[in-house]
Amino acid sequence: MATTKSWVLTEPKTMEYREFEIPEIGPEDMLLEVKATLICGSDPHRYLNDDGKAPYPLILGHEFAGVVKEIGEKAAKLYKVGVGDRVTVEPYIPCGHCEYCLKGLYQVCVEGRCYGWSEPMNAEKAPYINGAYGEHVFIRYGSKVHKLADDVSFEVGALSSVVGNGYRMIISHGHMQPNQSVLISGPGCLGLCTVVAAKETGCSPIIVTGYGDNDKGRLGLAKELGADYTISLDKEDGYARIMEITNGEGVDGVMECTGAPSAYGLALDVAKRAGVIVLLGMPGGKDIPIHIDTIISKELRIEGTIGQPGDVEPAMKTINKGIYPLEKLVTDKFPMDQADRAIEHFINRVNPGSIRVCLTNE
Amino acid sequence: MATTKSWVLTEPKTMEYREFEIPEIGPEDMLLEVKATLICGSDPHRYLNDDGKAPYPLILGHEFAGVVKEIGEKAAKLYKVGVGDRVTVEPYIPCGHCEYCLKGLYQVCVEGRCYGWSEPMNAEKAPYINGAYGEHVFIRYGSKVHKLADDVSFEVGALSSVVGNGYRMIISHGHMQPNQSVLISGPGCLGLCTVVAAKETGCSPIIVTGYGDNDKGRLGLAKELGADYTISLDKEDGYARIMEITNGEGVDGVMECTGAPSAYGLALDVAKRAGVIVLLGMPGGKDIPIHIDTIISKELRIEGTIGQPGDVEPAMKTINKGIYPLEKLVTDKFPMDQADRAIEHFINRVNPGSIRVCLTNE
Amino acid sequence: MATTKSWVLTEPKTMEYREFEIPEIGPEDMLLEVKATLICGSDPHRYLNDDGKAPYPLILGHEFAGVVKEIGEKAAKLYKVGVGDRVTVEPYIPCGHCEYCLKGLYQVCVEGRCYGWSEPMNAEKAPYINGAYGEHVFIRYGSKVHKLADDVSFEVGALSSVVGNGYRMIISHGHMQPNQSVLISGPGCLGLCTVVAAKETGCSPIIVTGYGDNDKGRLGLAKELGADYTISLDKEDGYARIMEITNGEGVDGVMECTGAPSAYGLALDVAKRAGVIVLLGMPGGKDIPIHIDTIISKELRIEGTIGQPGDVEPAMKTINKGIYPLEKLVTDKFPMDQADRAIEHFINRVNPGSIRVCLTNE
Amino acid sequence: MATTKSWVLTEPKTMEYREFEIPEIGPEDMLLEVKATLICGSDPHRYLNDDGKAPYPLILGHEFAGVVKEIGEKAAKLYKVGVGDRVTVEPYIPCGHCEYCLKGLYQVCVEGRCYGWSEPMNAEKAPYINGAYGEHVFIRYGSKVHKLADDVSFEVGALSSVVGNGYRMIISHGHMQPNQSVLISGPGCLGLCTVVAAKETGCSPIIVTGYGDNDKGRLGLAKELGADYTISLDKEDGYARIMEITNGEGVDGVMECTGAPSAYGLALDVAKRAGVIVLLGMPGGKDIPIHIDTIISKELRIEGTIGQPGDVEPAMKTINKGIYPLEKLVTDKFPMDQADRAIEHFINRVNPGSIRVCLTNE
Repeated sequence: MATTKSWVLTEPKTMEYREFEIPEIGPEDMLLEVKATLICGSDPHRYLNDDGKAPYPLILGHEFAGVVKEIGEKAAKLYKVGVGDRVTVEPYIPCGHCEYCLKGLYQVCVEGRCYGWSEPMNAEKAPYINGAYGEHVFIRYGSKVHKLADDVSFEVGALSSVVGNGYRMIISHGHMQPNQSVLISGPGCLGLCTVVAAKETGCSPIIVTGYGDNDKGRLGLAKELGADYTISLDKEDGYARIMEITNGEGVDGVMECTGAPSAYGLALDVAKRAGVIVLLGMPGGKDIPIHIDTIISKELRIEGTIGQPGDVEPAMKTINKGIYPLEKLVTDKFPMDQADRAIEHFINRVNPGSIRVCLTNE
Repeated sequence: MATTKSWVLTEPKTMEYREFEIPEIGPEDMLLEVKATLICGSDPHRYLNDDGKAPYPLILGHEFAGVVKEIGEKAAKLYKVGVGDRVTVEPYIPCGHCEYCLKGLYQVCVEGRCYGWSEPMNAEKAPYINGAYGEHVFIRYGSKVHKLADDVSFEVGALSSVVGNGYRMIISHGHMQPNQSVLISGPGCLGLCTVVAAKETGCSPIIVTGYGDNDKGRLGLAKELGADYTISLDKEDGYARIMEITNGEGVDGVMECTGAPSAYGLALDVAKRAGVIVLLGMPGGKDIPIHIDTIISKELRIEGTIGQPGDVEPAMKTINKGIYPLEKLVTDKFPMDQADRAIEHFINRVNPGSIRVCLTNE
Repeated sequence: MATTKSWVLTEPKTMEYREFEIPEIGPEDMLLEVKATLICGSDPHRYLNDDGKAPYPLILGHEFAGVVKEIGEKAAKLYKVGVGDRVTVEPYIPCGHCEYCLKGLYQVCVEGRCYGWSEPMNAEKAPYINGAYGEHVFIRYGSKVHKLADDVSFEVGALSSVVGNGYRMIISHGHMQPNQSVLISGPGCLGLCTVVAAKETGCSPIIVTGYGDNDKGRLGLAKELGADYTISLDKEDGYARIMEITNGEGVDGVMECTGAPSAYGLALDVAKRAGVIVLLGMPGGKDIPIHIDTIISKELRIEGTIGQPGDVEPAMKTINKGIYPLEKLVTDKFPMDQADRAIEHFINRVNPGSIRVCLTNE
Repeated sequence: MATTKSWVLTEPKTMEYREFEIPEIGPEDMLLEVKATLICGSDPHRYLNDDGKAPYPLILGHEFAGVVKEIGEKAAKLYKVGVGDRVTVEPYIPCGHCEYCLKGLYQVCVEGRCYGWSEPMNAEKAPYINGAYGEHVFIRYGSKVHKLADDVSFEVGALSSVVGNGYRMIISHGHMQPNQSVLISGPGCLGLCTVVAAKETGCSPIIVTGYGDNDKGRLGLAKELGADYTISLDKEDGYARIMEITNGEGVDGVMECTGAPSAYGLALDVAKRAGVIVLLGMPGGKDIPIHIDTIISKELRIEGTIGQPGDVEPAMKTINKGIYPLEKLVTDKFPMDQADRAIEHFINRVNPGSIRVCLTNE
């Protein structure tokens, strides 16, 4: 019986590259040969177990792309793909029957299945290879599988859920329209993918904020992706600059991608009356002091958002157009068998200009 | 030339009952003989000038009803009323031409005109009698005037904007639907009027929270108005009780009517995934610590709301049906010439069970 | 092995009461003992095969309620019911994974499964007993199962999907709000259930139109259920009467429940500017002449609606409250073993005041 | 006293270039020196009075741009413009106080004021010069005035309300999103401006249909403006081609810009389940046979739309970007003093490839 290797996280900061038997592929199943896996900004929380919720043993990896190696008949019909197809798979797996899935909110599905992340998907339960830090992933029935255009690389394809996050912020929650102004706070991978979604929507102007020397390159990339203005909050007065850009009106929408405590006050201050603030960056458990009166007196709408249910489909169309230099978001690459080094490299910020670290199987 | 009397607030805690000439009524104007004015919960802020923004000299009074005494031709056509009609008038006056008015958001009109409240409506500018603590109010063109049904008292008619606030919370911002569950926090005048709006919308169950002995009567009234459950937060664990009532699901919507710091944590905790929290009660400048992660991980929608543009029309239909005992919200009455006593009575909480204090011209 | 009987429709107008083996109930399955099945207004289309689409052999019956007789573990967990529970089951079965199911539109699921109706659910395929004209129905995994309150009869419980249609028209597509005016055209079972949904939503006034002596009783029932006005179009000028009732304004929403060619012109004429017309009654293939200019010049919104995905849940809450005399909609009853007589009774309009014909297993 | 000339339409097909005194400009007024006026496709209806509703005497012209010649203080504050500014003015003038204006629907304002079109704006009432077929227009208070960027010509600026129509179809009614597919039926001025709005919104693919040799150039222009596919319905099977382009799925939205009877059937057939059809092209009084069953079984949403309230603001931002070759839509030019020849030229289709005919004051 054929085998495959995956990195099993058994306790904080301890991953071993373990061999697994490749499970049998039934009519509902699919086996994906992983080509590229990105280290999501949230992976360190599982790696370090800083919130005590890591369901060890766990194979990390929920941002990935690869090649269909084997697929059952029913799965092939649902996904409309076949052996050899180049695809990316969404992190969340809808059960398809709970209250939330039937409202399209499968990221809060009661079964809570997310590749490389949640308890029902850990490495203790068959088919075991449930995360993408490895050579193969077993794809459960009902997963959301999307084809890559021929000239889209696996690295870029693996960004599908992050561009999907951008669409969720800009469109599904922000309801932004062409020629509306938007502030995107934070030029990390999420913020940059949100620039792309904003650009696709015709938002204008698109303003991106960053902080410090490390964000300099990221802000430059924001401009390449479509931002009209970038602001270094360590050097400029963010409020004054945004008001200047918007002729004193403020912005129609704020997309908060950092979770940084200082971001919320600025967001409330620069949002127009009846504007929207979409939150995705998590402060990580901390309570943030919020000036509630401002929310009320300006009739602001604030929406929390998590995951990207339904948003990867339009995001993939954008990616497959191939007109945005998304490959520049993949700044660091490691071969898959050095995933242990790669995650330490990421956590220790060895490359201060890093955006996404990629693990590859050549 | 005829005269009329109004209470002019000249400095904090100093009101004098001053005589004014009744202005000439042109084609766009209307003169209202005030029959009932309610002391809004926000009036003390102007009376005490606790935020330093009171535009003295000021005649208070923006919740009122009365009889049309004189009306110009153009005004009569717009308002569809005539001399002798019993009416209530909304606090906010749309300019009708700014960006916000043309989106229906006339409570944030750039001209900022609100009877008895804002700088452009103070007692220093003609026609002077711009608030309803007095015998007459001059009604500016473009005001929103609503007829009272024959059997609706002036006191109840003066509640129109508060019932309108309830509609704004439940419908315009909450988008609540029949058989959705709702928590209304705080059984003051606003909370109770929100119970009425929730009842009209078919929300179920309707849960109202209060605190302490003083709220006991108010919670009883909440039940009379349509609440299914009431909770005294000093005696019961609010979270546990709400989860019990909703079979562990939490509520579809929370309507926050208090501004009390403790209310926000409970709201976040009991809201369902993808639920909504509507904010109207203001903490009054204080920053409140908010658990942002909860907003994100449950994909909550939070909307601030102020005023009631467009919401008084359906609210008046509810009031005019006459099926809710709204008269019980008017707990204390004073003749108009004792408005100075009345506001001190209100501020000093002389009647602990007080909901609204009414000033009347018999 | 136990057996059960179901009425198999083998060709137009030919039903035989055939014996089936009761299938084995696996972990995902449920066996329902049918207590009440309603003859839907659409059943004759399958019985007569007038559109040539009837997937014979077919066991009719998609509006039904009964008792859980046997249930697998996984099904019990999903449905939250157990043996002996009194329940109703929705007609449409979501696959849970197609584009439409994941948008909540499971009535247009690509698998197209509907009890007693569609090709994948005919009597030729195991488990065969796929319709509710019989003693038992096999309930497929993913079905939508709702508990009946103790004092709700099976006959009334079987109306769940029709009340759900009413919610779909009024809320999901109509977006009607309290104190908005609504015209419901046609006092058949659908129209009457829509009156209930409108009443729950606080719509006012609710106006219902009918035609001829046969509708007299139905219009009376409309009033009992909450209509404010009824109009007999054979005796009154519908347009004039509706304009009179609405003070010349027209209605905010029209709910078209008949499919009668004459209904569309009236709907366009009485709808307010920016009003909505929701269509459910089907003209049955006929093209209807429509005055497009009216749709444009009044900026009307017209929405077609079919099925009731997500709408049965709030509908059941309404039914379970027990405050509407829904039992009066079940006007005719036959024992299950006379289903052949019952459907002829329905088609031939033996009882001109009939609303729903019910088949019962005592 | 200074005079100005305007073309007064006194009876069908009879226009005379008459001299008027320039009215005094009060604080609320503005005098516009007309630089470019477009002959709207609807102007012939007034010119010919084919519906019997033309309010003669009438000065035509509601699509125009020019230079501010004189402006009152209050007007200057509202419009944020001054003497010498290059501007365009929207056709509809909100009263600002009726039910519709306060909902943002000022195109259906109860006062019904539209430059060069409606009875309250005819040439019989002061200030007389109420249409843009002439040297000057008197701009009433509350009009919507928009500045042109320096490099935007008056001819292109005069297209503002047509690009606004495109935004109304795509955004305000269509609610289209990036990467959704759209069919725009008809490559006239409206259809082409809708292509621009669709492109700005990121719609993809954008498909435009035309008919016959005369549309060949227009379809070519559609591609220049951003269409991905064009179809000549006289040469290709529209349904088959659209299904091929969309992989058999059909389109998310149809924007109907022709009013041609054959367009409606195609629209219903190619719209996806739960798709939207927006109607602006008017059949001109004719009833069109519509297959209602399709609307219902696919749950289609159909919205009529007229005017462009609130839509010119984003449209102007698009125009002012200067990235679309909108000048190519202005195919024919006449000096203002030949407006009588110009409208005959337009009506008689002298130039078969004509899109918009422009009247200019050099």
